Amino acid sequence: MQTSDRVFPEWDVSHWFNTDHALRLADLRGQVVLVEAFQMLCPGCVSFALPMARKVHQLFGAQGVAVIGLHTVFEHHSAMQPHALEVFLHEYQIRFPVGVDAPLEGSSTPTTMARWQLQGTPSTLLIDKAGRLRAHHFGSIDELQLGVVLGQLLSEGAPSGDAAPLPDEASSSVCDEQTCAVPGAGKPS
Amino acid sequence: MQTSDRVFPEWDVSHWFNTDHALRLADLRGQVVLVEAFQMLCPGCVSFALPMARKVHQLFGAQGVAVIGLHTVFEHHSAMQPHALEVFLHEYQIRFPVGVDAPLEGSSTPTTMARWQLQGTPSTLLIDKAGRLRAHHFGSIDELQLGVVLGQLLSEGAPSGDAAPLPDEASSSVCDEQTCAVPGAGKPS
Amino acid sequence: MQTSDRVFPEWDVSHWFNTDHALRLADLRGQVVLVEAFQMLCPGCVSFALPMARKVHQLFGAQGVAVIGLHTVFEHHSAMQPHALEVFLHEYQIRFPVGVDAPLEGSSTPTTMARWQLQGTPSTLLIDKAGRLRAHHFGSIDELQLGVVLGQLLSEGAPSGDAAPLPDEASSSVCDEQTCAVPGAGKPS
Amino acid sequence: MQTSDRVFPEWDVSHWFNTDHALRLADLRGQVVLVEAFQMLCPGCVSFALPMARKVHQLFGAQGVAVIGLHTVFEHHSAMQPHALEVFLHEYQIRFPVGVDAPLEGSSTPTTMARWQLQGTPSTLLIDKAGRLRAHHFGSIDELQLGVVLGQLLSEGAPSGDAAPLPDEASSSVCDEQTCAVPGAGKPS
Repeated sequence: MQTSDRVFPEWDVSHWFNTDHALRLADLRGQVVLVEAFQMLCPGCVSFALPMARKVHQLFGAQGVAVIGLHTVFEHHSAMQPHALEVFLHEYQIRFPVGVDAPLEGSSTPTTMARWQLQGTPSTLLIDKAGRLRAHHFGSIDELQLGVVLGQLLSEGAPSGDAAPLPDEASSSVCDEQTCAVPGAGKPS
Repeated sequence: MQTSDRVFPEWDVSHWFNTDHALRLADLRGQVVLVEAFQMLCPGCVSFALPMARKVHQLFGAQGVAVIGLHTVFEHHSAMQPHALEVFLHEYQIRFPVGVDAPLEGSSTPTTMARWQLQGTPSTLLIDKAGRLRAHHFGSIDELQLGVVLGQLLSEGAPSGDAAPLPDEASSSVCDEQTCAVPGAGKPS
Repeated sequence: MQTSDRVFPEWDVSHWFNTDHALRLADLRGQVVLVEAFQMLCPGCVSFALPMARKVHQLFGAQGVAVIGLHTVFEHHSAMQPHALEVFLHEYQIRFPVGVDAPLEGSSTPTTMARWQLQGTPSTLLIDKAGRLRAHHFGSIDELQLGVVLGQLLSEGAPSGDAAPLPDEASSSVCDEQTCAVPGAGKPS
Repeated sequence: MQTSDRVFPEWDVSHWFNTDHALRLADLRGQVVLVEAFQMLCPGCVSFALPMARKVHQLFGAQGVAVIGLHTVFEHHSAMQPHALEVFLHEYQIRFPVGVDAPLEGSSTPTTMARWQLQGTPSTLLIDKAGRLRAHHFGSIDELQLGVVLGQLLSEGAPSGDAAPLPDEASSSVCDEQTCAVPGAGKPS
């Protein structure tokens, strides 16, 4: 993790999907921001990083976590143009905002990827409510560990005592593959 | 989630494993406590709840989360006696403290299980640094969601700015199943 | 794989579950026999070997594969007595016949395990329609590979042309996580 | 499963990858042929059907199973042109021959897909050594079930007694997550 007191620099996006207006990191102050840098033909992005980002968006999008995809193509550009990306986002049912990292003239690496010195895809960045980079990871992430960092960043500046709920599961009868239930048990006090 | 301003009542344990002295919930003030109530022959306990508890212990045991197993046998008592449990803990390499919920005379449900009104096994309870029950769940838990609650509870009363690190992964060359690397890329700023 | 022209020696079982009469290998001639040697407190047996045996029983039990469990306890005998095994089989919903490998006086290894020179648990043995050992494996097995061997053994002595069916899946509309459907497509010729 | 005494009709391919000459189904007589019909932006194809085809190719490609990919694009054609497919096959490390299903003028469905009346992607077809369609499946396939059919088709016309081996695993000491070993145990007879 690279902590820094500096505000993290903006992305540079040439085209947005899943949003009707251009987004700026500065506009997301007060929220925890998860940026998922990916390429649509990167196997690790497709198999775990994007499903994880989608899950964070579904579970915590309404609770203060803004999930942003960044299409940082640094190889095989002709096969991953915005039109193909649009089809990809549709087929993979990705609903959170996705920006195309702006090409950098004379370089295969796009602008934001170079500015942020990303090592490749998938890269996951966590930016706190004050706009500072608080965690960065290249490759797969354990969900329990990601959750703990998200919980800590969500807690900053929030009043104590409002932990996210763990939904109660419906009680089953006797034993199944998931649980063994006490017949007629009540709820915990 | 059942929040409560009351301090959560103590367990009643007849025998401890993996600790050389009896533990009390009151002695764990200042730590977040995860109690995993299980039975050694409950399939859901073995397949996901105990592996999850073990993972929390390994990753966050040294960072303020006390993981405690509670063997709450409410059926087939003769097949799950303390001696069999000892073998089970050995074979499954469970290293965190495990207490045997004290039998309650005239009842198949043991003392703590009745006192806490647990619905069955596995049941996961999260108790905050002040000793209050903050989350309770019967059945399987999503690790991302558990992580967020743990992160929030860990943050309470802690100074801001020390989120748990996401370990940086070794950079790979070009694409593999996990990542696509930018050749010669540096670390993020 | 150890192939042999010899008929494989019988098991020696002191107690049977899930069958109302004692079984002999010799009585299963004409069927392919899968023997799963396990211990109820062996993690690998519980997590993959027994679920795999249960799946073979469910899918191919009526098509010529006899699945037999063999409880080969060679350590911690007092924690894995027949009464505990009975509870275990009930909780894990194991319905195929399970025999307790007969104790061998003066040895911690039971009779059949010694006779068959098994290396430990889980061990999977495949015996052909003529009673010969055709495959043996200690540890986890890839299901695709197991399937191919089962298919080959099932084919021996059977008339050609009756391959097991791959069940047709219900057609979905457009794309979901599983499939992309052609609107209004018919069945393959 | 659609069995038929007729020889299954040929594919019509406009472009091949991973082979230096055009392939015909007729040239593969004597082998079991697994055809995987897919689209590069179909999530189910990427997450399970292509990994499964790759596994069959790796494990059984040298033992009489010819694995052939067929890129049957019936939607979003502009995003899945042969150049993009070439990048996709490279990134996903697909080494078996892949043909592009020939476009059919005036139709979004390509030629072979229409000829074979496929319902969508992924579709898996198994063709026996005599060139007849023996199994067809739209959607995900259980690997154990696929293995059994492959084993049966491989057995046809082959001499009995040469079942594919289940590789022996290295013995471990005592118990780990996979196995419990008998100290000093020999190999099975």
